[in-house]
Amino acid sequence: MNWKARLLKMDGLDPVFDDAGGLQWGTLADAAPDAELVFLGMLDGKPCFAPVPDGNETGPPFANPRMWNAMGMLSAADLASYGGARSLVDWHMRHRFCARCGSPTQLAKGGWQRDCGACNAQHFPRTDPVTIMLVEHEGRLLLGRQPRFPARMYSALAGFVEPGETIEEAVAREVHEEAGLRVRDVRYIASQPWPFPSQLMIGCYSVADDDQLTIDKTELDDARWFTREELEAARAAGKEGTDTLLFPQSFAIAHTLVTWWMNKE
Amino acid sequence: MNWKARLLKMDGLDPVFDDAGGLQWGTLADAAPDAELVFLGMLDGKPCFAPVPDGNETGPPFANPRMWNAMGMLSAADLASYGGARSLVDWHMRHRFCARCGSPTQLAKGGWQRDCGACNAQHFPRTDPVTIMLVEHEGRLLLGRQPRFPARMYSALAGFVEPGETIEEAVAREVHEEAGLRVRDVRYIASQPWPFPSQLMIGCYSVADDDQLTIDKTELDDARWFTREELEAARAAGKEGTDTLLFPQSFAIAHTLVTWWMNKE
Repeated sequence: MNWKARLLKMDGLDPVFDDAGGLQWGTLADAAPDAELVFLGMLDGKPCFAPVPDGNETGPPFANPRMWNAMGMLSAADLASYGGARSLVDWHMRHRFCARCGSPTQLAKGGWQRDCGACNAQHFPRTDPVTIMLVEHEGRLLLGRQPRFPARMYSALAGFVEPGETIEEAVAREVHEEAGLRVRDVRYIASQPWPFPSQLMIGCYSVADDDQLTIDKTELDDARWFTREELEAARAAGKEGTDTLLFPQSFAIAHTLVTWWMNKE
Repeated sequence: MNWKARLLKMDGLDPVFDDAGGLQWGTLADAAPDAELVFLGMLDGKPCFAPVPDGNETGPPFANPRMWNAMGMLSAADLASYGGARSLVDWHMRHRFCARCGSPTQLAKGGWQRDCGACNAQHFPRTDPVTIMLVEHEGRLLLGRQPRFPARMYSALAGFVEPGETIEEAVAREVHEEAGLRVRDVRYIASQPWPFPSQLMIGCYSVADDDQLTIDKTELDDARWFTREELEAARAAGKEGTDTLLFPQSFAIAHTLVTWWMNKE
């Protein structure tokens, strides 16, 4: 009955490429007999699965340089398939036990749930809402860089939404904590899933009344104001960037947001 | 040093009222010596804490009728304090063990983290993004009712954002799954935290091209189209509602969204 099903090939949590540079797929026969399988959905009329690797070493919760390169090579459709699969598989690897009672859990509902046989708790894949925000002051845009970013790369500030907050409150708190600015007129622009490990990036725009930065150096290496001309030059310079700025890559929501800002008005 | 600190009184996870109908606060001396304390933030210049109750019985993940009554009595400020506290405390109760290795975890960072001493995993409070959406077709609004709702109560459809989805994709998927409709022009309206147990409600508006409903009876008891006049009559009728509709209560984001729709144009 499974002859049409496809199995996503993964190297741990990393993608595996076929000869044409797309994601490599196999059949269910490629999975280990005792492998936990996650149902990813239907693609081209075929049910697709991904195997949960052994162990619970998932690596750090951000994309390493190798992953950034790999993501730049995948089509948008492949990136969506891979991202969803990676989020789910990573979650399973880190949730083999019940957080409520400590007993082992079992995969259920095609991998969209784990059940505890001891206390009957049900556990569901986690998606963490993160705000990522443009801050404008008099025609300039605030971007910052985290210490692990490649040289000259600046992006939009970002941070997790905390329990008890609205999206708009989270934006204002993050900008104040990281850059010391008060913002107003917070406005939703776009959203995007981000699979490191499983975030919902909620992209917003906001306005600061002044441009005096107080940078939180535990979070940011640097933050500064960019003119539209600087951003346009960096985007035009592509992957090499300019002397002062590497523009965010096209698969990152920061690219969408900054481009939206450059095109507005 | 703690003489100014305040401790939120809770009955399990339920609020405790003072004589004026507000939240009841005590001092740290009221906490059991071995109680885990969660730092809620500063309120009126005083640090505020909530104790994590013993055990791991947190009840079902929605507000029961007693809670709906209680929430209707609290001011907006008290509701925000209580909601944030309840989300955090509930998370601690359900995360006393490490999901990665099964060992006991310890509260850290004032209750905004739990650490595993065995495998060194760090665990953070969970916030689940949920889309809640208005669907319009030619001047009428789609609302639905879950089986556990009080009689005549209808509200906006809602569902969790899944790994790998945008907000807009989640809205379209949920409306199709629950009501059989295809929607377009999805637009963000407002967000609100919801502490049962810890959701970020992301309120959206969308447009359906037809009005033929196919209701998923495992999710919904009923769903139907309402005219602006029906909604206005129900809102004007207050807590009693009309013969056909109880309008969503003011502390629910559905109230904000439906009111936004009634006022638009």
